Formats: sequence, C-alpha cells, structure tokens
Amino acid sequence: MIIVLKKDSSATEIERIHQELSRWNVTTTTIPGKQKIVIGLVGDTANIDTRQIQALSSSIEQVLRINKPFKQASQEFRYGEPSEVVVSTPNGFVVFGQNHPIVHIAGPCSVENEEMIVQTAQFAKATGASFLRGGAYKPRTSPYAFQGHGESALGLLATAREITGLGIITEVMDTADLEKVASVADIIQIGARNMQNFSLLKQVGTTNKPILLKRGLSATIEEWLMAAEYILAAGNPNVILCERGIRSFDQQYTRNTLDISAIPVLRSLTHLPIMIDPSHGTGRSEYVSPMALAAIAAGADSIMIEVHPNPTEALSDGPQSLTFEQYEKLMQQMNNISKVLGRCMQTSEMLNSVHLPKFAPTLFPIASI
Amino acid sequence: MIIVLKKDSSATEIERIHQELSRWNVTTTTIPGKQKIVIGLVGDTANIDTRQIQALSSSIEQVLRINKPFKQASQEFRYGEPSEVVVSTPNGFVVFGQNHPIVHIAGPCSVENEEMIVQTAQFAKATGASFLRGGAYKPRTSPYAFQGHGESALGLLATAREITGLGIITEVMDTADLEKVASVADIIQIGARNMQNFSLLKQVGTTNKPILLKRGLSATIEEWLMAAEYILAAGNPNVILCERGIRSFDQQYTRNTLDISAIPVLRSLTHLPIMIDPSHGTGRSEYVSPMALAAIAAGADSIMIEVHPNPTEALSDGPQSLTFEQYEKLMQQMNNISKVLGRCMQTSEMLNSVHLPKFAPTLFPIASI
Amino acid sequence: MIIVLKKDSSATEIERIHQELSRWNVTTTTIPGKQKIVIGLVGDTANIDTRQIQALSSSIEQVLRINKPFKQASQEFRYGEPSEVVVSTPNGFVVFGQNHPIVHIAGPCSVENEEMIVQTAQFAKATGASFLRGGAYKPRTSPYAFQGHGESALGLLATAREITGLGIITEVMDTADLEKVASVADIIQIGARNMQNFSLLKQVGTTNKPILLKRGLSATIEEWLMAAEYILAAGNPNVILCERGIRSFDQQYTRNTLDISAIPVLRSLTHLPIMIDPSHGTGRSEYVSPMALAAIAAGADSIMIEVHPNPTEALSDGPQSLTFEQYEKLMQQMNNISKVLGRCMQTSEMLNSVHLPKFAPTLFPIASI
Amino acid sequence: MIIVLKKDSSATEIERIHQELSRWNVTTTTIPGKQKIVIGLVGDTANIDTRQIQALSSSIEQVLRINKPFKQASQEFRYGEPSEVVVSTPNGFVVFGQNHPIVHIAGPCSVENEEMIVQTAQFAKATGASFLRGGAYKPRTSPYAFQGHGESALGLLATAREITGLGIITEVMDTADLEKVASVADIIQIGARNMQNFSLLKQVGTTNKPILLKRGLSATIEEWLMAAEYILAAGNPNVILCERGIRSFDQQYTRNTLDISAIPVLRSLTHLPIMIDPSHGTGRSEYVSPMALAAIAAGADSIMIEVHPNPTEALSDGPQSLTFEQYEKLMQQMNNISKVLGRCMQTSEMLNSVHLPKFAPTLFPIASI
Repeated sequence: MIIVLKKDSSATEIERIHQELSRWNVTTTTIPGKQKIVIGLVGDTANIDTRQIQALSSSIEQVLRINKPFKQASQEFRYGEPSEVVVSTPNGFVVFGQNHPIVHIAGPCSVENEEMIVQTAQFAKATGASFLRGGAYKPRTSPYAFQGHGESALGLLATAREITGLGIITEVMDTADLEKVASVADIIQIGARNMQNFSLLKQVGTTNKPILLKRGLSATIEEWLMAAEYILAAGNPNVILCERGIRSFDQQYTRNTLDISAIPVLRSLTHLPIMIDPSHGTGRSEYVSPMALAAIAAGADSIMIEVHPNPTEALSDGPQSLTFEQYEKLMQQMNNISKVLGRCMQTSEMLNSVHLPKFAPTLFPIASI
Repeated sequence: MIIVLKKDSSATEIERIHQELSRWNVTTTTIPGKQKIVIGLVGDTANIDTRQIQALSSSIEQVLRINKPFKQASQEFRYGEPSEVVVSTPNGFVVFGQNHPIVHIAGPCSVENEEMIVQTAQFAKATGASFLRGGAYKPRTSPYAFQGHGESALGLLATAREITGLGIITEVMDTADLEKVASVADIIQIGARNMQNFSLLKQVGTTNKPILLKRGLSATIEEWLMAAEYILAAGNPNVILCERGIRSFDQQYTRNTLDISAIPVLRSLTHLPIMIDPSHGTGRSEYVSPMALAAIAAGADSIMIEVHPNPTEALSDGPQSLTFEQYEKLMQQMNNISKVLGRCMQTSEMLNSVHLPKFAPTLFPIASI
Repeated sequence: MIIVLKKDSSATEIERIHQELSRWNVTTTTIPGKQKIVIGLVGDTANIDTRQIQALSSSIEQVLRINKPFKQASQEFRYGEPSEVVVSTPNGFVVFGQNHPIVHIAGPCSVENEEMIVQTAQFAKATGASFLRGGAYKPRTSPYAFQGHGESALGLLATAREITGLGIITEVMDTADLEKVASVADIIQIGARNMQNFSLLKQVGTTNKPILLKRGLSATIEEWLMAAEYILAAGNPNVILCERGIRSFDQQYTRNTLDISAIPVLRSLTHLPIMIDPSHGTGRSEYVSPMALAAIAAGADSIMIEVHPNPTEALSDGPQSLTFEQYEKLMQQMNNISKVLGRCMQTSEMLNSVHLPKFAPTLFPIASI
Repeated sequence: MIIVLKKDSSATEIERIHQELSRWNVTTTTIPGKQKIVIGLVGDTANIDTRQIQALSSSIEQVLRINKPFKQASQEFRYGEPSEVVVSTPNGFVVFGQNHPIVHIAGPCSVENEEMIVQTAQFAKATGASFLRGGAYKPRTSPYAFQGHGESALGLLATAREITGLGIITEVMDTADLEKVASVADIIQIGARNMQNFSLLKQVGTTNKPILLKRGLSATIEEWLMAAEYILAAGNPNVILCERGIRSFDQQYTRNTLDISAIPVLRSLTHLPIMIDPSHGTGRSEYVSPMALAAIAAGADSIMIEVHPNPTEALSDGPQSLTFEQYEKLMQQMNNISKVLGRCMQTSEMLNSVHLPKFAPTLFPIASI
C-alpha cells in the first residue's frame, strides 16, 4: 500500500503521518520523488481500510493498494519514480538508475593471480569503467573443476581496488562467507544458481551493501522480482537486477539465451536498475558485442562484461571473454548508441560530480553485518 | 562441397569446369562474390575425391567440404559472401542483405477491409517502408477464432499494391493455396507453425518467389537452417530468415521470448538475410520499440512490425500492434541507431538506384508454379 | 453448451427438442451416455439464454455452458462419458476408449521393403496387435535424409494389410496426399510437426477416418486439445490423442521428454482416447519398455511402439526400435500391469466380440473425401 | 578409474594393493559387489598409466577409466553394482536400493503443529511407511508467505519420531542450520532450489547422514549427477536422488512436468537409489496417484508423497496433498504393481530382518559435523 502526498507537504506533517501510521502493524518508508512524495507501507495491510488512512491528513492525495505479489520492488511502490542505487567506491560515488549514465563493469571470470587482476583493473579504469568484477568463490558444475581461489582472491581484489580506486563486484555463495566478502566488495553478487537461496537473500538483506541479483537460469520475471523482494523486505533497498541468459531448448550455438526483452519488461514492472551480462548470456566472445549493443539499445542501465588479458589461457570462461582490444572497440560503439538514445556511458570524470539523492538510503547503514 | 576460383578466371574456363563437373552426380551453382568466384556442388559429394576436382583446372584455388548439415544455407557455401535477396515491387527493386539498407515492413496482422488496408499501406509508404504485410489466411489456435478473409483478402492486398506500389508479404498455409497466394505476394511467408511443414517447403522451393521463413516456436537454430535448406535444395535461393520469438518457460509478461542472439549466431552460420519481428516476439505493443531498436543494434537486415490504424479494434493481435504515431517515432530512432552502426534504413528514394547483382537469381524463374 | 436430458426421455421428445433448437444458429449432436442423454450445441451460444432452452421441454434436466476454449473435445461436452473411437479393420472392429482393452500398435518407423513390412506385420499380429504402423511419407529434419518411399510404400502397407488383416496407421503430411493415404490407412496420423497445420486438420476433419493426432514438440495441453477441436469442429468425432515426448532443456540422454502426466491431465479434461508413443518419447530402445509400463500404469488407452526385424539396419529411427524379442517380453509385462489395474491388453480374439456403440458415429460417413 | 579384482582375492592382497596405491595421489574406496570386488580411485588419475596399476597384483582383473564427468556417481564406478543407502531409524534399519523393497515416505509439506504432525506420523506408520517427511524450514517464492516454523518444528518432528519410531526427512536450506537439522533428521533433504548450492553440498558431504538430493527445476540429468558428485567427493556416499518435476513451457494444468523417464535414464547411468515425488511433480492431488503408479512401473526405488489430515486447511501445498483415505488406496495399488514387477513395498515388519551390507559405510561416521 502506498500513500501519495501532495508535493508541498511539510516535513512536520510527513513526520506526523508516520507517527499516526505506527498505530497499524506496518513499517513505512518515505520515497521522495521528483513529482510526488510517497510513503510505502509494508506489513499486514490487507486489513487496513484505505479511507481511514486517507482521513489522517489533508496532505494525502491518494492511498493505493499494490496488487503485484512483489510489493516494494514494484514500480507502483515508488509511484513510477526509478530508484537510484548509490555505490561508494574509492574513486567516488557511482549511481545506478534509469536517469543516470550507463555503468559498465569489466573483469575476468575468476581472479587468477595478482598480476592479471591488477592489469585488468588498470585496463578497466582506463576505459572508464567504475567497477572491477572478479570471482573469488566460483560456483562450478563439477567438484573437480577450479573452484576459485577463495579468501586469497579476495585479498587480490582488495589490492586491485587500492591501486586503481575501482569498486569491486564479487560473488558470495554462502551465508558463512558473507562477512569476508562484504569486507572487500562494494557490490555483492548473488549468482544465478543462488537466486532462490532464500537464506542467503535474507542475510544480504540485513546488510547495507548494494546487491547484484542475477536471474536464475529458469527463473520467471516474477520469481526474480520476488527474490529481490526478499532483500528489500529484509531492509536493504539497494538491489540491481542482472539478466545473464536463461535456459532454453537450444544450447548448441549459445550457452544460454540472453533475454533482452527482460529490459523493457522489468522497466514496466519495477523501479530497480537493470544490468545485462552478455558474456554469460551468450557464452561465446564473438556474440558478446552485438548483444551488448542490443542491451544498450533496449534501455539497460548497466553492462557487465568479462575481459581477460589472455582469454585462451583463462582458468574459467575463456571462450566468452573479450580481449582488451575487443572491449575498447565495443566501448566506443556502446557510447555512440547510448548518445543516440539520449544517455551516455559512465566515465571516471563523472564520479566527482555525483549529486547524492537527498535521502540516499545506501549511505546510512540499515544494519551492520 | 565448394570450389573456390581465382578472381580473374575467365568465363570460358568457368563454363568448362561446369561441363567437367557434369560427369559427377551433382548440381552446381556459381556464386560471384566480391573477392572470389565460388562454385557450389550439391549432391552425392561424399564419394568425390577433392584432389580429382582440384586437378580439373589451374583456375581452381581450393576445394572445400562443408561439414555443417545445412549445406547451401551455410556461410561456407558462399565462401563468406552474404547473399542478396532481390525483390521486384511495383515501386522498384528492393534488396535484402547484410550490405544493404535495412528493409522495414509494416502492416496489420490481418487484412480486415479495403479502407483499413489501403490506409495502412499509404501510411507505410509515407514512412519509407517498401512492403506491406497483411494476413489473408491466418493460423489461429482456435477453430472458432477469426480465420482470415482468405481469397477476398488477397484481392484487397492486390488493390493496396496497385494504389501504393508497395510489395506484398502474406502467408501461405497449404500447398493447395500456393498459386493463389503467389499471384499477389511479392514475398511469400511461411509461418512459425509451418516451419517444418516439409511438403510446403518443398513446394515453395520450386517457385522463384522470395520466401520469408519464420522460425518455429521451439525450433533450434539448426532445425531452422535445415528448413531453409529444404527450400534452397528445391531450387529457390531466395530465402529470408525471420526470428519471431521462441517459447520459453515464462509466458507471463511476454507472449514469446524474442531471441535477439539469433542475429549474431545466424550471421556466423549463414549467408541468408535476417529479419526480426518484434511484434509477435513480445506480443505487447509497449515492448515492440525497445526490441526493434535492440534488433537493429545487434545487426538485423530487416524489421517487420505490426501497425494498425486503430489497434484496440483489430480483429487479431491488437495488443501487439503499434499506432501510426508510435511507428513513426520508432522509425526515427531506428534510423538514428542504424547510422551509428554504419547502415541506414531503406527509403523509397533508394529503390530506383538499386544496382542488381550481375547473376541476380530471383529475376530468372527457376521453375514456374 | 450442453443440454442434459432425463434418462427416460423418448426419442420423439428428443427429436422435437432438436427441431426447436434449429431456431438458434447452432449445430447439435446427440451423445447417448450410460447415465444420461446429452445434446451438445456448437455455434454462437454466447447469446442464448439458458432459461429459454430449459423451458423447451420437461425432459431437460440441465443446461450447462462449457467454459473451456475446447468445446467438443471437453469432458463436459459428453457429460463425463468417455468417447469410443471404433475402427474397422479387416480382422474386425477395434474400439479405442477408457472402458475398453488397451490397444497396442507395432511397426517400423518407415516402410522399407515388402519383406520387412510383411514380416513385421505377421509378428505384430502374432503378439495380438490389431494395427501395423509404418511411415510412407516421412517428415525429416534434413532434405538430404531418406524421405520415405511415399506412394509405393502405401502399396506395401496395403499388401501387409491384405495378408495379415491388421489395420494400418500411417501419416499424411499434406492435404494433396490425403486421398491416397486415406485409401490405405484405417487410421490417419497427423505428426507432431503438423499438429498446428490447420489446413490439414480441417481437411481430415471432413473425412470420417479415425485420426491419430500427435502432440507437437512444444504444444501445451490446451493447444493440443484446440487442434483436436479443429477436427471435431469440421465434423469428424474420431480423434485419438497421442503423446510422443515434448521438447525440454535436456536432450542429452533422451531425444524428448515423454510427458506421462499428460495421461491423467487429459483424462480430467477430455473424453477422447489417449495413446502413448514411448519410442519417439525417449528415442532410445533401452528406455522404451519402462516408459511403456509407466504409461499403462498411469492409465493410457493405447500404446504405439516401433519394432523392426533388425533395428541396427533400419533406414530411420533404428536406435529407438525394439527387436521382436524385446517387444514380446514387454507385451507380457504390459499385460500383467494392465490386469492389476482392472484392464487388459487387446488381443485378436476380442475383435469379433465387439459390440458397437448404438450410434457409432465412425461407421456412417459424415463426408466423403 | 576403477580396479576390478578377482572374486576370490584375499583380504590381505586387497590391503596390499591399497598400500601400493598410496604412492599415487589418489583416494581409494573398496566396493564389495555380488560378482566382483572393485576399488575406486579418485584424484589425479589422468596421469596414471593403467598398465602400471595392472602390474601391481595378479588378483587384478581389469583397470578401467571412467569417461563420464560424474565419476563416483557413475554406474561404472561400482562396476554395475547398485549402491545401498542404509538408514538407521528408531524402528530399525531401512535400505534404499534397486534390490530392496520400495521405500515409501509420507507426510505434510510443512510441520504445522504437534497434533497434526503426530497424527500424520501415526497414520504413515500404520500404512507401513518407515519415514515421515515434514518441512521445518520452507523455501517459499514470496518473503511474505509462511516460511515454516523452523527450529520449533524440528522439535515437533523429534516428538513424532519418538512416538512412532519413524525416521525423519526434513530440508536444510543453509549451512548455518545444518547442525540443528542433522540432530533431528535421519535423512537430510537438499531442495530443488539448492541443488546447485555448492557450499551446502560440500558441507553435507562432510557428514555421514544420508542425503536426499532433489533435482533442480531446470537441471539436466548430468548437472544433477554432478551435484551428487559434490557430496560423494566430499566423503559422503549416502545419496538418494529425487525427481520432483522439471520446468517446461506448459504450466497450466500441472505445476511441473514430472520426468518419469529420469528413472530408466538414471538407472543406466548411476548406482544411486532413485526416489520420485509425484506431489511436487504434478502439484495437483488428483494426478498424484496415477503418477506414483507410473513411477513404480518405471522402476523407482522409493516414493515420497504429501499427505495431510485435512488438505484444504494446509498452510502450504494443500492442493497437492492426499487425504489419508486416498493414500491408503494408493498404497494398495502400488503394492499390486510392484509385485507384478518382482518387487514389493517396504513394510514395518521388514525392518528387523535387514541384513546390513558387510562394509555398510553409513554406520561409521566419515566425519562429524
């Protein structure tokens, strides 16, 4: 349920409404949009009579029920106002969201050694990327395959962060590793195979770290938004949705089927920022660039791409990694297309000019880990 | 199997090689590319010793086997040279192919009456479209749903063609209707549900009409190319491949899952032109434009979109049809993106300046219906 | 819409009701069940007031609307009475239906030569099969693969029929071949790839031949029943539904995923008889027997299995064909399981004792081809 | 890699071979089959020359490499000998395996309160079930849905175990809960959504508790066996595989598509016992019984079914739960079919007569939690 307030409502009146609402068994969030101020109510709202709420204040314009099963993730919950996920990195604040530059993220599938990760980070920085991705804990189909260097890889990511100032995105696979991962990661990734690991979702929901939630291999759009809702409901509003290819009947020429239509569909359903990972989405480097361009054209807010100094020698996912040269060429094309559509790619120069949203929720810890 | 000839091979020598080849039980096609001249061999080539062929002439540079199950549809068969499907329309020749402007096609799901089809054709022409699409025979899930106006609708399409000079694309559902459909259509469509109607494929393969082959709902890329091979093998080289959404596990927010990655995958496998139909691909008008832009960005050679003067009153597929206004806006955006990528959208001004390929195969009927 | 009549309604009164109904724009069918007599109405029933119908006669117990999109195929249309598809074969009448012995059908994928088809027919007869299956026209993915011997194969099937008295099941792929196929086949098969070839469905609907309608590779249960509805709506009530494996994401160890749950689901939705084809359903001979037994246990009315005198030399589908010895062993097991469930396998001895249903619709041609 | 020993090899000689093998970097397991004794080698076997191993002893009949990616889970690893998972319950030992009675398991989706869980346990015991299933921690799509009573529900399961002597099967969702769950569960369930939660798989692999590994919603057979391999590779040989329905394109009439063909496929690939869960597999109580019978007919070693004293009032999964009466009727039918196939359903009388396998691995803890 949401309460839409008149634009000129006073802070005192808003505060008073919050206090009045405390009589019901609900938690409330204020969402200050460009056009309206909205108060979102979560809890046992089924039994609340909307007319009672309406009567609380003359500043209340409308009281609306949210009919979607995903409440806080729904577009309605913010009355159409896209949310902004603000991430603090050594180089400055980066904002993910529909009304912001398109954030691009580069890096290898897994952290292999210090030289390669630092080299890749330096390259990524040079292209304007604000984040480095790299796997420390790797979910692999076979127990006999390389499982990632784990804790020591986290140390190497910290080194790369220190040297370049890039933010770090890395995956957590288990609640037991969350503290360690959170100590290095600026954005914590939940991988496709853990999208419905509800214990993990609840746990990352109690942190204030931005969460990159990858879509499960055969998760419906609604299941995906419900997984995001687990994180939001636990108190963490900083969720970025990442499409990385779904499983279809045809796996002969691509590893997965990258669902580009998820972009406009999510846009019409949710306020959360949308990222596309064309590397896992196709599984073949020669298809990565056209699909990255398609993602930009369809309206993605962020692109994450696997690059490797030497893909043929990568310990994992070499066939889907771009070389530095390929990535640079792609960056140019993405930039050109984004401009045609009235957007642009994020560059390092932009970092210092970020104007933080007034009530920027990510900066004030909701809970410590 | 293909024979690659030196660029300066004389017509007399090529002719002589063809005659020599007649000793084997194969049919041959000459494919004049920009870099090379290639002779394609189809038939029982498994038993031919490539060294015997090589010895036929000093003009022969290389003799190569095609390992893909789709032979004539494979990129190798034309030695990497994209094929050009040339279509004669009242307004002039239109060429579908990778090195040509992007052809856009507009029209309603089904032909409803003279007024609406002529009005739509005139609008389509004004936007620069060279073709009008419109269903006369409609494959419908229910026997009780509107089945298309059939023969009388063909007449209305002929009228619209006469008035506007646009080429006509319409579907054939049965070998028994082929002659009637071919008398009006400039491009004959094989629908998704008939992609493996092998009798129909063989039959359209005996005509010289360009064929629009839609991908089946759960057809793999390879099955789709094998369906194209049926048409090519029957003697008709004029095949355009159209992706229109595949069936996945999630059908809640889109009717199908538009497989944009089919574009780069097909590009790497086949020389045939690639069309995208975002209307059926998504099933919802609000998602059509972002997906059309994604298709252009990923490299499509043609876009087919359902438009209707009044979508809410359409007899079929209203929810996925654009209004004229929406289509015009989309055209502008497609044009902008295509330019960034070094291509452009086809316009009516371009029609008169088409330089036909020297051996343009569509213009000389291989067989009459 | 159906009209349920009291059990003791007189023929005169039923006739009178039919005449009264002719005032509305509907066609009517009388379905004489064990408990009730039902009149089915098809046409523009949406505008009929059920109270008007109710008032027509005191013999009318109830007037019910059918809410499913498949009307005549729905269980409601026969008020829960399973339909019986009666097939005339040289050896006698065979009935497919829930309250009848389980019909088993054997034969090769394709008719290869006279010796093999006659030998297989004689073996099939010896096991108690009442039908021989065998492909004359074969839908093949590749245009270069064996396409079936066509018309000459039909001749060989006729020979096998003459020698053994078995009924013949063979596939039609095109409306143009229907007359030829119908002249030999006792049951006409519509293959999976043609399940939504609506022209073909309409055409076979105008014959009085029993139709074996295979489920499409990715057809939903509802689309399948709607395809059956096309045949029923065209006037042919003799439809048998055959599940033959659907396409899933996993094709490594089985060719398709045999959907055994289709059996109880169809039973709850339709009155039509249900057949299972575990040969195509699995694609591997070693999995055929367990899946055939599962089908019997789940309630199938008929089983169709590919057998071949020498599977390793079969021209098509050898890997999924049983040897004669394997088939005999399976027959014994199917018989044992069917008895436990209160049914039995059809044997040739049963043919002469068939009591035809009183209004047996298949015996009186609705339309000639 | 496996070493096949002659049947009459002495214990001393086997011991000596083990010691010789310690020179290579491998771990070894002895698998005493009915026909042969097999030593399985896991580790870096790629570099071992099989001839060197062969030369170790004249008792060695054969040295074979395992080509499947799943090594210890493969049928070859036990040279075709089915494994036996022995579970200790208060009432006695229960053995899961191909050559043992079919184990049936009943219980509610979630533990709701003491009365209902004890009542259900008593009913289950009366029908001959040796295990009670019941969810304490429930994976639910929505964060707002009932999440299970957690720890307190574990207490109620312990009570039901004490009163009835039944073994307990319940799910663990997080490594953090493993100790608590293992203190009550006789078999620990890994749910479908956690099938590729590799951290959890590794962790349960270090216990000696039997693990019920459910197939993921869109897991291929090979991915599922690789998930089992994670547990085996971590040292726990007691894995039971449970098929519970896969996700297909059709979810209208069943919640999932129960893949009955997984039974013969797994049988041909692995030695592990196979369980079927027709309740989740179909999602509708009316389809549970036919699918349970199909599973028995296809060769399942165990059946798990949701029963509830009052399905219409269940807190979760009511629509797929059988009533006590329905379950009793089904038991009778499963019993009849299993006998026809030369097997039988497990009953409580059988528990005391279990002869434990000589080297029964489950009874000697490999590692404590």
